[in-house]
Amino acid sequence: MGNLNVVTSTAVVDLLGLLAYGELSSFEQMAVDAHNAPTLFDKSEMSKFATGEFEHYQKICVRISSLGVDPIDAMSPFSKALDAYHAQLVPSNWLEGLVKSYIGEGIAADFYREVSKFLDSETAKLVEEVLTDNGLADFAVERIRQACENDSVTAGRLALWGRRMMGEMIAQAVLVAQARMELAQLFITEEANAGSDIDGLVNRLTVGHARRMDVLGFAS
Amino acid sequence: MGNLNVVTSTAVVDLLGLLAYGELSSFEQMAVDAHNAPTLFDKSEMSKFATGEFEHYQKICVRISSLGVDPIDAMSPFSKALDAYHAQLVPSNWLEGLVKSYIGEGIAADFYREVSKFLDSETAKLVEEVLTDNGLADFAVERIRQACENDSVTAGRLALWGRRMMGEMIAQAVLVAQARMELAQLFITEEANAGSDIDGLVNRLTVGHARRMDVLGFAS
Repeated sequence: MGNLNVVTSTAVVDLLGLLAYGELSSFEQMAVDAHNAPTLFDKSEMSKFATGEFEHYQKICVRISSLGVDPIDAMSPFSKALDAYHAQLVPSNWLEGLVKSYIGEGIAADFYREVSKFLDSETAKLVEEVLTDNGLADFAVERIRQACENDSVTAGRLALWGRRMMGEMIAQAVLVAQARMELAQLFITEEANAGSDIDGLVNRLTVGHARRMDVLGFAS
Repeated sequence: MGNLNVVTSTAVVDLLGLLAYGELSSFEQMAVDAHNAPTLFDKSEMSKFATGEFEHYQKICVRISSLGVDPIDAMSPFSKALDAYHAQLVPSNWLEGLVKSYIGEGIAADFYREVSKFLDSETAKLVEEVLTDNGLADFAVERIRQACENDSVTAGRLALWGRRMMGEMIAQAVLVAQARMELAQLFITEEANAGSDIDGLVNRLTVGHARRMDVLGFAS
């Protein structure tokens, strides 16, 4: 298992920078979703979820600073890939926004739980904390299922939309891995098995994705 | 001065409902502004200001609930007018967003300081607290002035944009006043002077608006 427990500080800062920018992007996305909410109650709730993402962002920035790195510098290498992901998947309505948040947050949480084994315990604890679902999943699932219950057209469109998430995420992750070798190295444990951990990781993320699609009543 | 100190609970709830929805709308607007930020630092700062608006919103909701009213019910009568205001003034870039926030927050703060005299001390204290500038004004003014320093075209466009705010706000305020008589009555103190307080209020708000335009280096 080679360098499984050897994590360069560059890789840790990379993981935190990526996570921080991810939370900041989610904050923006959910605020836009709040703008598209069909009721004042939903608008208020979605704004609360957005603000929660920003609080997570702030906590991660504090951690990055404590490692002696400017959070802006830590995030910078990842802004392009994450902006591209979001630009490829601009929700055209409230329900697409809900699917995007539920599916996207789920994949991100699965990914970070996978990489937590490479992190020191304090960083791992923080990562676990900021990825704990704060109620968004139930909120989103309830509304998506209700909208699809007697509307197979909406259900079909949202399922298609949900399937696109995984592909776009993988596309951007490959670009990030190519640009950030220290980060990519985490998943390449021995020369003979080069790439195999990445395959395993993608497989496990795909299983999680399929489970969430199933929760929504969609075939993945 | 007739009923100056007689405030119906309906009017108080109206003022708080209007303020709550205003803060929630500002949260959304500033989150969109964050999305348009030219640097990661500005994005982070603007997101922080947005989150601050949401915290104010939550505090106002707590106060409305303590008066025995559902915050959603208190906000509902005002969502259409505020949505119309924002729909009329969608910033097309970062600088327009900054001008909108600086000018809009300023007018709102002036208005609520005017009406504070009609409010019980606890509500007035809360209103003062949520309207205290949290650094946005300096942040916005610095960037707007810098962008306009050697660019008279940008300065001219932003000045025009800033001048539109006041007109749009008054237009929506008139609609609100027509629909919410208890609220409008606050400003009509004696039959003989009917309307005169409204004129005085608008004049005072206009003076404040002109002062802020001047701070930005714009003619009002």
